[in-house]
Amino acid sequence: MNRIYVHGYDRRESVRLQDQAQTLVDLLHSDTSYPEGSSVLEAGCGIGAQTIPLARNSPGARIVSVDISAASLAEAKAKADVAGLTNVQFQQADIFALPFDPQSFDHVFVCFVLEHLSQPIEALATLRELLRPGGTITVIEGDHGSAYFHPDSDAAHMAIRCQVELQRAAGGNALIGRQLYPLLRQAGFDAVGVSPRMVYADSSRPDLVDGFTKKTFTAMIEGVREEAIKAAMVEPEVFDVGIRALYRTAEQDGVFCYTFFKGLGQKAARA
Amino acid sequence: MNRIYVHGYDRRESVRLQDQAQTLVDLLHSDTSYPEGSSVLEAGCGIGAQTIPLARNSPGARIVSVDISAASLAEAKAKADVAGLTNVQFQQADIFALPFDPQSFDHVFVCFVLEHLSQPIEALATLRELLRPGGTITVIEGDHGSAYFHPDSDAAHMAIRCQVELQRAAGGNALIGRQLYPLLRQAGFDAVGVSPRMVYADSSRPDLVDGFTKKTFTAMIEGVREEAIKAAMVEPEVFDVGIRALYRTAEQDGVFCYTFFKGLGQKAARA
Repeated sequence: MNRIYVHGYDRRESVRLQDQAQTLVDLLHSDTSYPEGSSVLEAGCGIGAQTIPLARNSPGARIVSVDISAASLAEAKAKADVAGLTNVQFQQADIFALPFDPQSFDHVFVCFVLEHLSQPIEALATLRELLRPGGTITVIEGDHGSAYFHPDSDAAHMAIRCQVELQRAAGGNALIGRQLYPLLRQAGFDAVGVSPRMVYADSSRPDLVDGFTKKTFTAMIEGVREEAIKAAMVEPEVFDVGIRALYRTAEQDGVFCYTFFKGLGQKAARA
Repeated sequence: MNRIYVHGYDRRESVRLQDQAQTLVDLLHSDTSYPEGSSVLEAGCGIGAQTIPLARNSPGARIVSVDISAASLAEAKAKADVAGLTNVQFQQADIFALPFDPQSFDHVFVCFVLEHLSQPIEALATLRELLRPGGTITVIEGDHGSAYFHPDSDAAHMAIRCQVELQRAAGGNALIGRQLYPLLRQAGFDAVGVSPRMVYADSSRPDLVDGFTKKTFTAMIEGVREEAIKAAMVEPEVFDVGIRALYRTAEQDGVFCYTFFKGLGQKAARA
């Protein structure tokens, strides 16, 4: 009886997480579909989290997904095999030294990559070189400064700031989402347009509360606890109060907001 | 020549402000339209800024717009006359002592009102009494904690915090937008749904940058300068640096984000 319940619960849990994941996939990917026969570079595919929806939404496109980490690529490839994808080719490469000729691709797709780079404009300009004239780039990034919630909590904001500061110390920028417009313009792209994609989670959306507020955002902030304390950024007690306050926003009367940004740019048609 | 230019410019300026205003009206009002013959209470109409689009989107509804201030009502009525509205009746009344029988209205509309009340749940519960069973309430509020921008600036956040603290001292809540879901639930409404309406302004949207970033949001924060300094909330120099930083976000490479929240609730059909 207990086993049956547990399995049943697991199955429901799996469906719920799937629903939540699908909500975020739709939010970020639903308006990106590349035409039959087009060549697409996914720069920085990591473990392939975005590769699967990218390839599924563009079944006729030929996608090359690169990453600097061989271990991540192996995981991405395994995922793509399980998903039965046949239109993706994986290749190990540094985003600043990509082994492709100029103007090799019709489209470039970059998701959750710029936030880790100390020279995002240079990276975008490098990717622009690989686009044919008239080709497009799509960039998706989060922005941890877009997180606000009810009940509000100074300690929670302080815990989030630890993550932002640690990412900054590592050369990245966790507040990069809001900057996509100027970054794409400064990298030389034309017809730049940015659209925010806001996640709003209250208790009428339990899948999103569980999957995003708790298991994605708060879990990520919680994950920097040791590092933040070691760096003397925060008192352990304050950090823990902050994490509890973030989980508190997932309760019946809580609300959590976060915004992703999606930018589209074009390489001018004149060569 | 100069006069012609000036007039031409003024006309363009007027068209631009109109465009920007229309963008915000669409963002907040486009999905609110009440059926022919329905009775609608607009609680707290102020000088009628929302009354015009409300009445235009529901030409067949009978709208009663109330406000506690006779002066504001006179201005609202003048505006409605200029707009040629025939479906709105204005009436002076306190939101906590409205001169209507229970269950008098099919719908209630409340925009930018709760932020000024120290007892928002009680106000909502009072309005619920005036709804017939099955009737709906629509609530729109901003949230100053949803403002973030590029370039980022601690002084700008400090200036915004002055406005939030002054509003709190006056019994209001400038961070109320994010709370609409729990407030509506706690006031007894059913089928509550809240949707965020984000304003995103970069230099590809000059009307929004000018009309919202500069002339709406930054001008409003700038407006509390004397009061904030008098209350010793901030050094004048810091406040001014903050205001300059907010205007800075309206430049070519700047970005400004702000979110309004729109909540819908229903009074259960069982009486």
